[in-house]
Amino acid sequence: MKERILAETERLFWKYGVRSVTMEDIARQLGISKKTIYQHFADKEQILYQVMRDKMVKNQSEMECMTIKTDNPVEEILHVLTMMQKHADQVSPNLLIDIKRHYPQAFALFRQYKEQHIMHSILENIQKGISQGLYRSDINPTLLARLRVEQIELAFNNEIFPTDQYTMLEIQHELMHHFVRGMLTEKGFIIYNQYVNHHSYDNKEYQADSNDLAPQPAE
Amino acid sequence: MKERILAETERLFWKYGVRSVTMEDIARQLGISKKTIYQHFADKEQILYQVMRDKMVKNQSEMECMTIKTDNPVEEILHVLTMMQKHADQVSPNLLIDIKRHYPQAFALFRQYKEQHIMHSILENIQKGISQGLYRSDINPTLLARLRVEQIELAFNNEIFPTDQYTMLEIQHELMHHFVRGMLTEKGFIIYNQYVNHHSYDNKEYQADSNDLAPQPAE
Repeated sequence: MKERILAETERLFWKYGVRSVTMEDIARQLGISKKTIYQHFADKEQILYQVMRDKMVKNQSEMECMTIKTDNPVEEILHVLTMMQKHADQVSPNLLIDIKRHYPQAFALFRQYKEQHIMHSILENIQKGISQGLYRSDINPTLLARLRVEQIELAFNNEIFPTDQYTMLEIQHELMHHFVRGMLTEKGFIIYNQYVNHHSYDNKEYQADSNDLAPQPAE
Repeated sequence: MKERILAETERLFWKYGVRSVTMEDIARQLGISKKTIYQHFADKEQILYQVMRDKMVKNQSEMECMTIKTDNPVEEILHVLTMMQKHADQVSPNLLIDIKRHYPQAFALFRQYKEQHIMHSILENIQKGISQGLYRSDINPTLLARLRVEQIELAFNNEIFPTDQYTMLEIQHELMHHFVRGMLTEKGFIIYNQYVNHHSYDNKEYQADSNDLAPQPAE
């Protein structure tokens, strides 16, 4: 039952944000009583916390898997975009703002994840890119990793990127490609161009497994 | 006297932030009484407001002048960096955060300036760059202009870019060059490389008038 509650609540949170989903909504969707939910979770924030924890654990293992599967840092970082795009469309744009404003424990968890895992994996990507000559050697890795981490949060900020003007997909796509291009060397551009030419920007195709198209790093 | 008060207060604000500078400090520095200051300004926020207004008017005319003097959008946007670097070293990193938290009227003025003038001039730069084939045509001009505007504020955020790790100069330099590079086409890169090769990154030289070195746009 606990798992069913988590799965359904996640779906509702992602779709409607956290604030507007009540314990009653969750119970009704599952055809159970609120009492049953309270047997497993003290309150809504506890469900949120667990949902986010699971998400982050899953995310992290997906990222690690990607690092193994991809041939080079350019491809790796663009794959992360694919993954984010896959999720972005399902997520209510107010979700992160909502959590930031009203659910301090859950937000602290996100912050911690951001600092430890996202920051770490971007920094590693940048350092690998520099050592392979795909990213410029004159960039400051920690400074740009920090910029990228902040951009993720920025993209979710409805006041900065109003959702009536841009889709989440469009924002993430634009910011990520701009971020990568800003670091590339000439050698890096060759691989980048191979990658984007082989992958249609049509979202459906973009989501497809693209291992077979993976370009080899230039010498 | 009003002008002397404004000039001295600006110097103190830039150096120490707004909160830590008292009316007494200003009076002492000028060798006048607090009463004299109150004859001209109701409170510290009123001085701050006037200081910021002057700064913005000056800034805007400098930007317009640059647009006339420079040959192409790549050079123009890099010139803005030079201008920002010139100021960045004199500014207390807490200044903007300080204003944001404690001086709502002055911050509203900054926001308005940001929305109207900074946003407008960046957007114009991007559109010009695209039409001249120096920036990629597949970028979303308003989305990237918005990103750049937010980066300016981000750079001043001491929690995101701690000043014990980076100098303001370094942050602005890194973010701006990364931003420009992320938009460039091959043709744009030729001009960009000419520009950076002709300009030493040594700050002193970077500040020098570089008109004589201005590269011509490629055909």
